[in-house]
Amino acid sequence: MREKMKAWQLAEWGKENLQVAERDVPRPGPNDVLVHVRAVSLNYRDKPALEGSVLLNETPLPYTPCSDMAGEVVEVGSDVQRWTTGDRVSANFYTRWVDGSATADLFGLSLDLPGTLAEYVLVPETAIVRAPDALSMEEIATLPVAAVTAWSALVTEGRLRAGQSVLLHGTGGVSLFGIQFARMFGARAIITSRSAEKLERAKLLGANDVIETSEYPNWAGRVMEITKGRGVDHIFETIGGENYKKSLDAAAIGARITTVGFLESSEFTLPIVPMIIRRIVIQGLSVGHRRSFEDMIAAIEINGLKPVIDRVYDWKDVPAAFDHLDRGAFGKIVVSVNP
Amino acid sequence: MREKMKAWQLAEWGKENLQVAERDVPRPGPNDVLVHVRAVSLNYRDKPALEGSVLLNETPLPYTPCSDMAGEVVEVGSDVQRWTTGDRVSANFYTRWVDGSATADLFGLSLDLPGTLAEYVLVPETAIVRAPDALSMEEIATLPVAAVTAWSALVTEGRLRAGQSVLLHGTGGVSLFGIQFARMFGARAIITSRSAEKLERAKLLGANDVIETSEYPNWAGRVMEITKGRGVDHIFETIGGENYKKSLDAAAIGARITTVGFLESSEFTLPIVPMIIRRIVIQGLSVGHRRSFEDMIAAIEINGLKPVIDRVYDWKDVPAAFDHLDRGAFGKIVVSVNP
Amino acid sequence: MREKMKAWQLAEWGKENLQVAERDVPRPGPNDVLVHVRAVSLNYRDKPALEGSVLLNETPLPYTPCSDMAGEVVEVGSDVQRWTTGDRVSANFYTRWVDGSATADLFGLSLDLPGTLAEYVLVPETAIVRAPDALSMEEIATLPVAAVTAWSALVTEGRLRAGQSVLLHGTGGVSLFGIQFARMFGARAIITSRSAEKLERAKLLGANDVIETSEYPNWAGRVMEITKGRGVDHIFETIGGENYKKSLDAAAIGARITTVGFLESSEFTLPIVPMIIRRIVIQGLSVGHRRSFEDMIAAIEINGLKPVIDRVYDWKDVPAAFDHLDRGAFGKIVVSVNP
Amino acid sequence: MREKMKAWQLAEWGKENLQVAERDVPRPGPNDVLVHVRAVSLNYRDKPALEGSVLLNETPLPYTPCSDMAGEVVEVGSDVQRWTTGDRVSANFYTRWVDGSATADLFGLSLDLPGTLAEYVLVPETAIVRAPDALSMEEIATLPVAAVTAWSALVTEGRLRAGQSVLLHGTGGVSLFGIQFARMFGARAIITSRSAEKLERAKLLGANDVIETSEYPNWAGRVMEITKGRGVDHIFETIGGENYKKSLDAAAIGARITTVGFLESSEFTLPIVPMIIRRIVIQGLSVGHRRSFEDMIAAIEINGLKPVIDRVYDWKDVPAAFDHLDRGAFGKIVVSVNP
Repeated sequence: MREKMKAWQLAEWGKENLQVAERDVPRPGPNDVLVHVRAVSLNYRDKPALEGSVLLNETPLPYTPCSDMAGEVVEVGSDVQRWTTGDRVSANFYTRWVDGSATADLFGLSLDLPGTLAEYVLVPETAIVRAPDALSMEEIATLPVAAVTAWSALVTEGRLRAGQSVLLHGTGGVSLFGIQFARMFGARAIITSRSAEKLERAKLLGANDVIETSEYPNWAGRVMEITKGRGVDHIFETIGGENYKKSLDAAAIGARITTVGFLESSEFTLPIVPMIIRRIVIQGLSVGHRRSFEDMIAAIEINGLKPVIDRVYDWKDVPAAFDHLDRGAFGKIVVSVNP
Repeated sequence: MREKMKAWQLAEWGKENLQVAERDVPRPGPNDVLVHVRAVSLNYRDKPALEGSVLLNETPLPYTPCSDMAGEVVEVGSDVQRWTTGDRVSANFYTRWVDGSATADLFGLSLDLPGTLAEYVLVPETAIVRAPDALSMEEIATLPVAAVTAWSALVTEGRLRAGQSVLLHGTGGVSLFGIQFARMFGARAIITSRSAEKLERAKLLGANDVIETSEYPNWAGRVMEITKGRGVDHIFETIGGENYKKSLDAAAIGARITTVGFLESSEFTLPIVPMIIRRIVIQGLSVGHRRSFEDMIAAIEINGLKPVIDRVYDWKDVPAAFDHLDRGAFGKIVVSVNP
Repeated sequence: MREKMKAWQLAEWGKENLQVAERDVPRPGPNDVLVHVRAVSLNYRDKPALEGSVLLNETPLPYTPCSDMAGEVVEVGSDVQRWTTGDRVSANFYTRWVDGSATADLFGLSLDLPGTLAEYVLVPETAIVRAPDALSMEEIATLPVAAVTAWSALVTEGRLRAGQSVLLHGTGGVSLFGIQFARMFGARAIITSRSAEKLERAKLLGANDVIETSEYPNWAGRVMEITKGRGVDHIFETIGGENYKKSLDAAAIGARITTVGFLESSEFTLPIVPMIIRRIVIQGLSVGHRRSFEDMIAAIEINGLKPVIDRVYDWKDVPAAFDHLDRGAFGKIVVSVNP
Repeated sequence: MREKMKAWQLAEWGKENLQVAERDVPRPGPNDVLVHVRAVSLNYRDKPALEGSVLLNETPLPYTPCSDMAGEVVEVGSDVQRWTTGDRVSANFYTRWVDGSATADLFGLSLDLPGTLAEYVLVPETAIVRAPDALSMEEIATLPVAAVTAWSALVTEGRLRAGQSVLLHGTGGVSLFGIQFARMFGARAIITSRSAEKLERAKLLGANDVIETSEYPNWAGRVMEITKGRGVDHIFETIGGENYKKSLDAAAIGARITTVGFLESSEFTLPIVPMIIRRIVIQGLSVGHRRSFEDMIAAIEINGLKPVIDRVYDWKDVPAAFDHLDRGAFGKIVVSVNP
């Protein structure tokens, strides 16, 4: 085993302070798995994280960002029985959340534990999942946050079924996995975007209906037309603010609005009467448990699902990758760990 | 059968226009049940209803208010098999919602169908429930809206269980049934109110903890103390506006906030990050299905629950009963139908 | 409207007594819908029904068999608002089970109510469902019993999801819908049969894995090989007797075995220890509620599912159709109602 | 810390071979907790275990029996953060099952891991639960198997609610916790026994109805009388064999029969038709996850529940305690660990 490794880190908060440092390769305790990281993907949450927000109060500097990774096991702790050197793996974001209900201490990667944008990362055995054979390292690296979030919302919590409809805003990673899972379950996927070109690509991915928001500023009304007045059963709210009211206008009786992030506002305001009359459920949600990840991998394998990668960046081009994240992507942005 | 009956009604919108009118006793169709009404209870929703709001666009005048009633069957339609003359009954608010998921056409009493503040009311067979033997007509009349709302939120949707905690605001009908159901299920009931005297009575009813909001303007912090930092599992939001943020502050990981009405504001605003981090569910809800009502009656019978009635008014004193509703009550306000 | 119609009936129990009779066309009550039947499909339950078993004690003669039908509305009762003349419809087997939990009085077609093998049938409004536009009358007639049973078991009760596995025995209607729904939800379908030829056709329909029981008398062991030792998540038990023990041997931890009928024995015997250790659930189930039927139709429409019909018989060839049912079919046997 | 400890063990299978041995006190690994055991309770599963059955194939000798214990933490591993010396604790039977669905490798105490009938026992941190302050060590020791089994069946899986009914056979530990939880949730508890005297005690504990099986050999018919023809919603099957058929006869539509053990036969036989018509669910179940244990402790604390102990035996009287288990007890048999 090498003794030193490279890792991207911030010595001070701020994206402009990203740089590569040399650090000791960590050594596994009895229940840890040491992973040689091959690919990492970026998520929206990494943007505020680079600025020091959406983190825990006590997050120390230097800070290594990112939570998504794929790699190979290179060393396991003395009590680890399920994994061995050479296994292709990924890791659940919440490293101690195996199944069931969330608790207070879940130990997230790049939250309570070090981030993954490094050559090696130490992961508790409880977080490791087997990577699907049919996917490349870059593809596997897209799964832990975006795909598990979409799966947790639609499947684990939302009990998605064939014949239902799912509304997605924009073409980020969560939305595109949302389309793919909706189609995998025989449901209808409806997607909104400002970009006609991205909507064309969403159609190719399987979206049943696309709504260009410049053409339909009242996109909720358009959703009602498409669904013949029924509204949609599942909505991902990734925008925040005024968008929530429109999402509510597009919701079917008994619909679920999953709130998973915010691009425009950190608050939302909703009228109470339609919430009550149409028995709407709003669910706050952040990623999910390892069991969801494992169930999702089984589904990916049976159905041959391929994650959508917008672009793979070289290790040295991490700042450019984050610039791409700022501009918005069609699917996932991945960094190949090849220093 | 008598041919004429008395009914309270509004020829024009506005509480000041309430008056007694004489009307034909309706005749049952093949699937209807004609009930001789003995008692009616008032609900918060009746207040805006008297002003013509919270109703359907096409609600015609004259309008007879109220949805809660208890009485005896006096005539049944030709196809009605489950009910017979003399049966003591009540009726589900949504007359066509028997079980399962809500749909668009549920036909609410005093909403799509005539209200119950009359000597006789025609109810579709699908809405009739058997009244518990141990309760008086006045007590039974308290159940359809307030108790079924509390049961639907806590039990049908919320899957309340022993060891959980429930937070209730104020001492209206829904809150007091909330206390009683929480205790019936072995859960902890916490209640807030501005009135120390009402809180004393809530304690006698079984509330485990009471919070006087004048003493604890930051009542969410007090809830956290009481629950040793865990927060509560179920919250009834009956206030709206800024109260939602405090309710969110008092919520445990995975908590459910049921929104069932609004006293102060018809909107609510919430921050997204704590919703996500603590995986909060907000559920809009309006009463429930007949199966919930029947399940609740079985529970009331086994546990000998007695509804809390603040005061019973005579038929002629309906305006005074509505004035009492405006002032706020401890439990339910009932009108005895004895014209 | 015509006054007389033709109907197949038994004046005495026994398949050999099937004959066409002339009867009055029934007239709808206020909540009934009169349907001009265009196609009827046969189900295994119709076989014992012809012999007078699997029926209610008081089932009177003459008896018209069959519960599945598709047709057009020709007349509606005075209170029927949702349906009008010309609507293409089918009917739920349990005519009063709209949604939610089952109750005692569900009024099944050809059970408490007349059967459907007639030119006209009267159906309570609560049982009517809109037929999918893309399906023929023959195809729609296959849905009420076989498809709704498969949907209720896998979706309504079983919460089927992508990545799970489903085991089906034989190639009758329930099994083939089971394959189609499994694939629609992104799950893996495994099917057993004695016939290599039928298994080939099951593959074309989408079955992921097929097991010829003459080649693998220990088919449970084969299931374990296919699933890499995990076992299957959902099993349809349509055989009974000793087959249950093998089904249990093929079950994953937490698996559901749905018992929906019996070809070989009316009892089953199981060992308790593996039930306990692997936390197996056995669910008795008979068709389902109208909401399941409606949800299923939405799924059929979005996914373009086509029911598998083995053969369509003419009205005059009903006895030959029942002979075919005795021999076993690949999918559904349909009678075209064209007297 | 002491270096040596006493433990009951079998050098060869067979209850007659039980004897006390001296062994090294085990030392905790980084994620282990060393508990000084103060009390242990016996369960039916310990009876076949003493004979070497109901165990894993590779269970080695010498074998220390029992899975239930209460004690104090005396030492914790280097990575253990949630527990500290002096904490009063118990342990979940399946030491790696924290929450959610069961998996293959759950590591049961006295199954894959050493039994608890010893002065000290090493428990993985993932299995430790905080003991309720209000209970004695003897009372706490009754909880892990019997109470968690009853809770998992009725609450976690069965979603018990007020107004439902629960049928229990005999007066062992699971049955008495079943009565107590049923009453805690506002449900009706019905219990059968051959002993009129034990039934009197069950009434004092809260049982609503008792059935002496010598008086009512057809106890299922008696259950139907008590429930006015509805049947019961939850049944614990602890007997096996022919008893299952009677249990089925006593089951309401949609009832759950939980199979948790067998006193008379290791198999059961059931008729398929009533299973289907009444949509019965049979659930195999073995104890539960730590979250169920924790939820149950919260419920015990809020409701002041006291476990029923038939008798506490001294450490030296373990053989007599097992003899008592053979004869049958009213509630739990406990061994005080005071060598």
